[in-house]
Amino acid sequence: MAHGAGGKASRRLVEGLFVPLLSPATPQSLADAAQVHINGTDMAITTDVFVVKPLQFAGGSIGELAVNGTMNDLAVSGARGQAIVTTFVLEEGLPTSILEAEVRAMAEAAQRAGVPIVGGDTKVVEHGKADKMYISTTGIGQLLSGVHVDPASVRPGDKIILSGPIGDHGITILLARGELDFEADLNSDTRCVFPLVEALASAAAPGIRWMRDPTRGGVATSLNELARDCGLSIALDEELIPTRDAVRGACELLGLDPLHIANEGQFLAVVSPEYEQAALNALASTPGGEEARIIGAVREKPAGCVLVNTRYGGSRIIDMLVGDPLPRIC
Amino acid sequence: MAHGAGGKASRRLVEGLFVPLLSPATPQSLADAAQVHINGTDMAITTDVFVVKPLQFAGGSIGELAVNGTMNDLAVSGARGQAIVTTFVLEEGLPTSILEAEVRAMAEAAQRAGVPIVGGDTKVVEHGKADKMYISTTGIGQLLSGVHVDPASVRPGDKIILSGPIGDHGITILLARGELDFEADLNSDTRCVFPLVEALASAAAPGIRWMRDPTRGGVATSLNELARDCGLSIALDEELIPTRDAVRGACELLGLDPLHIANEGQFLAVVSPEYEQAALNALASTPGGEEARIIGAVREKPAGCVLVNTRYGGSRIIDMLVGDPLPRIC
Repeated sequence: MAHGAGGKASRRLVEGLFVPLLSPATPQSLADAAQVHINGTDMAITTDVFVVKPLQFAGGSIGELAVNGTMNDLAVSGARGQAIVTTFVLEEGLPTSILEAEVRAMAEAAQRAGVPIVGGDTKVVEHGKADKMYISTTGIGQLLSGVHVDPASVRPGDKIILSGPIGDHGITILLARGELDFEADLNSDTRCVFPLVEALASAAAPGIRWMRDPTRGGVATSLNELARDCGLSIALDEELIPTRDAVRGACELLGLDPLHIANEGQFLAVVSPEYEQAALNALASTPGGEEARIIGAVREKPAGCVLVNTRYGGSRIIDMLVGDPLPRIC
Repeated sequence: MAHGAGGKASRRLVEGLFVPLLSPATPQSLADAAQVHINGTDMAITTDVFVVKPLQFAGGSIGELAVNGTMNDLAVSGARGQAIVTTFVLEEGLPTSILEAEVRAMAEAAQRAGVPIVGGDTKVVEHGKADKMYISTTGIGQLLSGVHVDPASVRPGDKIILSGPIGDHGITILLARGELDFEADLNSDTRCVFPLVEALASAAAPGIRWMRDPTRGGVATSLNELARDCGLSIALDEELIPTRDAVRGACELLGLDPLHIANEGQFLAVVSPEYEQAALNALASTPGGEEARIIGAVREKPAGCVLVNTRYGGSRIIDMLVGDPLPRIC
């Protein structure tokens, strides 16, 4: 299960098996979307498969997640989604009402995101060979002009921006499964972050060095990947990281770190210091960006590490996600 | 299961649920790939999910099928595949050797087809929530200039070309499952048909009216869709349709029609009569196209029907696939 969790084992699988065999020419740093050049147009393409359990949860469902997740992978690659295609694996006997609800959720999410769903494929497998439904979505988009997302461009002194509170999605899924004897007024944060990325790009495109949406593996995994890819250090300030009480409480109960919990409607951006204020202003004045803030900065050392300065004046190294505390989170 | 079989129930699902909700502006006729226009470039995009059982069979495997199937959907849409992305749903406990074999099969198929695999996603589900592995592939490609595939352009008198023998894939899968007490020297026909489409386009682009790869539901389903979409009749000559003895024999045993059996390396083309000879010559002189031939023609009436002239001088109407005689064929 850990190989699907988005943490260390996933990375080993990707770097040890998929990339060497499928894409031996791929550069070291793996991005949320690939760039392709067709007939002189630079495009981004990304694909995801969603196996979240349960299908519906507070604030969203698998269909909405599938559309938003794909739009977000394009957004943090600096691209505006232009078209989505989708596939379904359906378990024999799935009630039509469940399928229809998710197709409707996809349609609504796509309409909100302003992207057409242009094609698809459906297969049905025997009862017991899938868990109700799995959805795969692929998006293509056109790169925003002037935005260059590249970990190699990150410099010491750059600022880390986070778009809003962390861990809402992961903890919501956990609560939806009823495995915790714990109730909370919490919703998944699933949403399309493109409007925020677009606002950031309008105000601060030359200052944007890197972006990522911290889904499986959370903020800690995304920033560890960045630290490794740019060969620098990321220093976070724990008390600056927005975390709702319900998320903090559930994490304390379970011995989890909110920095490892999946998000489905947030993104991280590294911006150069001279664009810090413009970036924050742009986000703050865009609906849904009111809680964006600086949560840390890039340092020279210790190279390849993410350090968190705690509330109590100490600091600790935080690693990528290891194992899978919350399987099938998306 | 019938909803995933590619026949009537699949079409009802697509036309009754997916299209009205997801793509209300979609034209009546559904193609193997969607066209998208980004920054002045016309592109085709297609997506498929593969759940074939067993994973490996004579002449191919799920990984090879996934790459070839996607390239073929682009090819029959008149597009050269330029990039593929892929997702995996893996069942917990799947031996790495099986995964590696399929990733390798994908890499080799992609290399043969001349297309890079540029990205992917992997999820792992609990044991018993998938059947070893499911693979989704999405391809984008650039439209070949001068090729216009549109059922509305089909005219009475046009010729139906088939690239080679039918039913090899479907019957191979059936034999691989060991459900038939029957052995045969038969292989799946899985291959990328783009080289054949390219040769056809070089020689006869202005004469190409329509193309399709007859996968699930077979030649009968593809041609029924065409007949319905163009409002004309398709008249086939049974004795002109290439079918291997093993396929014919298995179909007789099972009461199936080879015209309903899935193919994974053939395509149908409708060409105008003045390009018939150029098209046949081009295919015959391209490796893998030696068995291509005319199998029938377009007639005015009976509108919306596919008629087969039998060996015995009679004729019968052949419908789309109804039900699912061979689940999980691709």
